[in-house]
Amino acid sequence: MVVQRVPVLRWEETPDGPVLVLLDQTRLPGEEAELTCADVPALVSAIRDLSVRGAPLLGIAGAYGVALAAARGVDVAEAAEQLAHARPTAVNLAVGVRRAERAYRAEADRDGGGTQRAAAAARAEAEALHREEIEAGERMAEEGRALLDELLPGGGLRILTHCNTGSLVSGGPGTAFGVIAAVHRAGALRRLWVDETRPLLQGARLTAYEAEREAMPYRVLPDSAAGSLFAAGEVDAVLIGADRIAADGSVANKVGSYPLAVLADFHRVPFVVVAPVSTVDAETEWGADIEVEQRPGREVTEFAGPFAGAGAQQYGRGAPGGAPAGAEAYNPAFDVTPPELVTAIVTERGVVSPVTRDGLGALCSGLCSASPGEAPHEGNGMMNA
Amino acid sequence: MVVQRVPVLRWEETPDGPVLVLLDQTRLPGEEAELTCADVPALVSAIRDLSVRGAPLLGIAGAYGVALAAARGVDVAEAAEQLAHARPTAVNLAVGVRRAERAYRAEADRDGGGTQRAAAAARAEAEALHREEIEAGERMAEEGRALLDELLPGGGLRILTHCNTGSLVSGGPGTAFGVIAAVHRAGALRRLWVDETRPLLQGARLTAYEAEREAMPYRVLPDSAAGSLFAAGEVDAVLIGADRIAADGSVANKVGSYPLAVLADFHRVPFVVVAPVSTVDAETEWGADIEVEQRPGREVTEFAGPFAGAGAQQYGRGAPGGAPAGAEAYNPAFDVTPPELVTAIVTERGVVSPVTRDGLGALCSGLCSASPGEAPHEGNGMMNA
Repeated sequence: MVVQRVPVLRWEETPDGPVLVLLDQTRLPGEEAELTCADVPALVSAIRDLSVRGAPLLGIAGAYGVALAAARGVDVAEAAEQLAHARPTAVNLAVGVRRAERAYRAEADRDGGGTQRAAAAARAEAEALHREEIEAGERMAEEGRALLDELLPGGGLRILTHCNTGSLVSGGPGTAFGVIAAVHRAGALRRLWVDETRPLLQGARLTAYEAEREAMPYRVLPDSAAGSLFAAGEVDAVLIGADRIAADGSVANKVGSYPLAVLADFHRVPFVVVAPVSTVDAETEWGADIEVEQRPGREVTEFAGPFAGAGAQQYGRGAPGGAPAGAEAYNPAFDVTPPELVTAIVTERGVVSPVTRDGLGALCSGLCSASPGEAPHEGNGMMNA
Repeated sequence: MVVQRVPVLRWEETPDGPVLVLLDQTRLPGEEAELTCADVPALVSAIRDLSVRGAPLLGIAGAYGVALAAARGVDVAEAAEQLAHARPTAVNLAVGVRRAERAYRAEADRDGGGTQRAAAAARAEAEALHREEIEAGERMAEEGRALLDELLPGGGLRILTHCNTGSLVSGGPGTAFGVIAAVHRAGALRRLWVDETRPLLQGARLTAYEAEREAMPYRVLPDSAAGSLFAAGEVDAVLIGADRIAADGSVANKVGSYPLAVLADFHRVPFVVVAPVSTVDAETEWGADIEVEQRPGREVTEFAGPFAGAGAQQYGRGAPGGAPAGAEAYNPAFDVTPPELVTAIVTERGVVSPVTRDGLGALCSGLCSASPGEAPHEGNGMMNA
């Protein structure tokens, strides 16, 4: 088992003041390097560059970011605004930011409250969110394992996953990967199929790294080879995470999730989404309302490919990879899967199946997320308590 | 317009004897480099390494390979065997090899025939095949353009393609790309969506290079982003080539074609296959009988990714990419699409739609390919005449 020595995210007090220390996920699996963020602009860059990523972890990082701004005595409202909008699709980021900001504000506005006590309140709120997300992961792992046992009794499961959803996204067991790990520990995992997840390879780099640590029987594949596995009857279930779930049950997740949902539907294979209720955004009515982040085209066009780097030795030459100069790309970071293609949504509060607006609403009552830019509406039971 | 100075494939007489000179497709689009093959083992390596690729061109290269063996006075039967099996899925390779071998044998076995005249006959047969494939491309381009005009009148087409099917696969206009170029010249192409085509990026490297040369309005995308385009109604038709078509109309093509067929079916978008009749293998009864080449896992696991090379500058660090050491991969080169998901097969002899065994048989009568290892059966009208 590969030992991960570096925590995914931690708060550290240094002689120069507090800092947030992140495991730099862009350098995995080759290197477990730390990235130290002493201020909010550094953290915003780390979020944009995907050094820290994954819906739950983005929420945690956002909350700690507010605490960092408060501890450093900079404008908390402005810092919160920058953090909440660093990436647009994962609702957890804005939710975490707003939660820490509210804790700060409540203390700052109180009689006898000071900025120091307010900063401490923001940090305590970030720590509480961090603990909650870890606990939510543990509960989701058990809920998901039980669901699979019900849907597909007898074990020997061949599960396909996309992107990365393990301990790197929350510090706990994660979302979809947490369920898969629970299945594996129960002796019921025959094969984990890991989509490499172009363009940024979170599957080939991060999920493979986590599967290796858990000693799972896994194989990496090009995203486009998943179709062959379905056609050959080699996939029993698809498990993915989510970056935002609209009130109608539409699921925004890493680009490539929707084609898997269509393939799963065509081949009558369960398509299961695992996400904490903090990912459900009651303010987003429909899937079509979800803002999908468009990332730089050069992530697609400028990349070395198998004929460069390690691959070049195989082919005995160092050909330049990538598209021709001037090529433009279509590079959405996420896609949206409609609820009718989702077999079940597994949360820490239970499972919604079939996926309906009412079912999701009932489960999330009093807990689901407000949308990024807005304070929660008063008197709406679906909003953050 | 980018000018391609180097022909895709040419025969050259040198002081040291004849050679086959190939445009090395692994070095495109960065460099138009030539690869000189003076003997059959060098050509077999070039085929395996994908320096020369594409179903029709593999047939042409195989035929010239036999001519090269004959001209160099080596064992022609043994050379033909090596060439025919250099890659297993594209039937054209074996067909081209056997055709030149038969021409050689017929002349060698004739009264008064000598090895020199037999070698000349093999070369003449390779040249004839080369000409035929170029002409077939021109006819397919016109057949395909007319079909699209009928299916989707009014122009303004947004066409999605996968892998590479242009002049690099035959020296002529190619297969699917030849149709797209005809649509473009007729002013009816609004957008060409180019799947990057993992793992070897024939789309991002080669189709983008050809689209750039033709000044087409194109965009490259990760294969997994095609789903988002379908969902947004941004795809009017899918056009792809084929490496082998079974007698039942099942289409083996670059991995990733089948998921596109399922998406096209789900979104009611025409899915059109363009291939010369030499790609139809009457000896392969069913899609399940097609041998699918499994390529080395390191094409998937060992690759630099966007955080290395050009991408590294963007992120300001040179992180190692690829999967963790020890990761294994599932890396089939092709997948098989059943006939019921194929709207039409366009050949140089006309269009088959709906795709049925009888329709395909009628079109190919007397022209379709025999299978790799075998001589054509006597008295079967579906075999090579």
